[in-house]
Amino acid sequence: MAFHHPIMTKDDLAAFLDREFPQLHIGGQTYFIEEVGPLSARMRMTYHERHLRPGGTISGPSMMALADVALYAAILAHIGPVALAVTTSLSFNFLRKPEARDLIGECRLLKLGKRLAVGEVSIYSEGRADVVCHATGTYSIPS
Amino acid sequence: MAFHHPIMTKDDLAAFLDREFPQLHIGGQTYFIEEVGPLSARMRMTYHERHLRPGGTISGPSMMALADVALYAAILAHIGPVALAVTTSLSFNFLRKPEARDLIGECRLLKLGKRLAVGEVSIYSEGRADVVCHATGTYSIPS
Amino acid sequence: MAFHHPIMTKDDLAAFLDREFPQLHIGGQTYFIEEVGPLSARMRMTYHERHLRPGGTISGPSMMALADVALYAAILAHIGPVALAVTTSLSFNFLRKPEARDLIGECRLLKLGKRLAVGEVSIYSEGRADVVCHATGTYSIPS
Amino acid sequence: MAFHHPIMTKDDLAAFLDREFPQLHIGGQTYFIEEVGPLSARMRMTYHERHLRPGGTISGPSMMALADVALYAAILAHIGPVALAVTTSLSFNFLRKPEARDLIGECRLLKLGKRLAVGEVSIYSEGRADVVCHATGTYSIPS
Repeated sequence: MAFHHPIMTKDDLAAFLDREFPQLHIGGQTYFIEEVGPLSARMRMTYHERHLRPGGTISGPSMMALADVALYAAILAHIGPVALAVTTSLSFNFLRKPEARDLIGECRLLKLGKRLAVGEVSIYSEGRADVVCHATGTYSIPS
Repeated sequence: MAFHHPIMTKDDLAAFLDREFPQLHIGGQTYFIEEVGPLSARMRMTYHERHLRPGGTISGPSMMALADVALYAAILAHIGPVALAVTTSLSFNFLRKPEARDLIGECRLLKLGKRLAVGEVSIYSEGRADVVCHATGTYSIPS
Repeated sequence: MAFHHPIMTKDDLAAFLDREFPQLHIGGQTYFIEEVGPLSARMRMTYHERHLRPGGTISGPSMMALADVALYAAILAHIGPVALAVTTSLSFNFLRKPEARDLIGECRLLKLGKRLAVGEVSIYSEGRADVVCHATGTYSIPS
Repeated sequence: MAFHHPIMTKDDLAAFLDREFPQLHIGGQTYFIEEVGPLSARMRMTYHERHLRPGGTISGPSMMALADVALYAAILAHIGPVALAVTTSLSFNFLRKPEARDLIGECRLLKLGKRLAVGEVSIYSEGRADVVCHATGTYSIPS
């Protein structure tokens, strides 16, 4: 299937996100696309004050946003920047307290259909092996 | 069960959240506890620029944060401010585009056990009948 | 919206399920439609040996099947028997041990769109107030 | 962590499941443990009439049971047969129609804590690369 290989580079994607979702970067850019590959994408969220909860731990909503954008980037990389994909569901398991460092979101697409795309995202503290948060999500793809 | 009635008022809860989660209000307070009741709580998120995506729609992460805090408030209202409850899972269905107005999160607790609390949150645009986002979530309650 | 009222009666639905899903009744009928209403349906699963786990408790897969069929019945009741709706996701929270009696699944549809239908199901032991299992699910509706 | 390596072999596990969950095999054994490894387990569900829906496709509840038992086997393999672990949540994405052949459930544990264990299960038609159903689940582990 053509869909199984990305048709946008990470630079294409970054430019698209900057243009279409400038609010992602309000207060300084913290989300960065690191890599796109066949049915996959990797996203970094840099450690930043506005993602924190008291005690220095990273907030749930910041991790949820990272998973959502990683999934979105992985899907767009494969279907192109034209499509207006919309999140229809997201599920999260919060497994461990993230450390005070960057988070990496590794997205793997499980299905890229004509109407629905489904993927999972494993979030790690940079340089660590344990998953701190695991997400699955579905996007609806307009015809 | 004692657990089935709130032991904190909405003012107690608001004071607790202000003290423990000041970062909720960074940029101006937008989350307000409207009511607590038996196994329930209602939370408002006021319409604010920082919750928006281009086009004026409210962002997914803002709605996810609203659900999380509504659930947290409902649980604390019943177990008291001492316990350090931690979100272990959250699941969301995004059903409709929210309108350009305040969002209301209605939380209903489904279980308040010794170790786990589970609830659901229906999010509405104020004054509208349709659910824009539905969430379920689990908190772990320390012994 | 026309979609907000059922267009099939519970007898229509029962006849449809009997014809299209005879395997539901293998070993004796245990799933019964009790009621359909605006965006809702109620289903009963009678207490039967084949739904049990050792100790007399009702198995998870039996409850999951009850939720799935309650959601399916609620959707079909509103869109008619022609459509071939397919489950795309199901999420369950298992809250309490069910008692040794019939289970009732109360389904409420949260969205009935052209492509996706989303609903929640609360499962109770008959005559009890506590939810034993809560489910949310999504069906894809073919065009 | 000691927890990261299995302490039961697949034969230990099979004997335990046969003894404690004889109802899994009612109508003939169709669930088989194929392998256990560090934080993982693989389970087979053989193709059998009682798992089918009309048209020869495998039913959702059969796949849900496969995911549940794969997760259970993976957890027990690491914590031993004494513990009475209970499913607290399960989430499923149904991605493709399974083929008329055995299904394989690959379980990976994401967390093995003192109170909660979380894992994911990818279900494949034997010999195929595409995931037909993806599950995540949580078990509560008694102290």
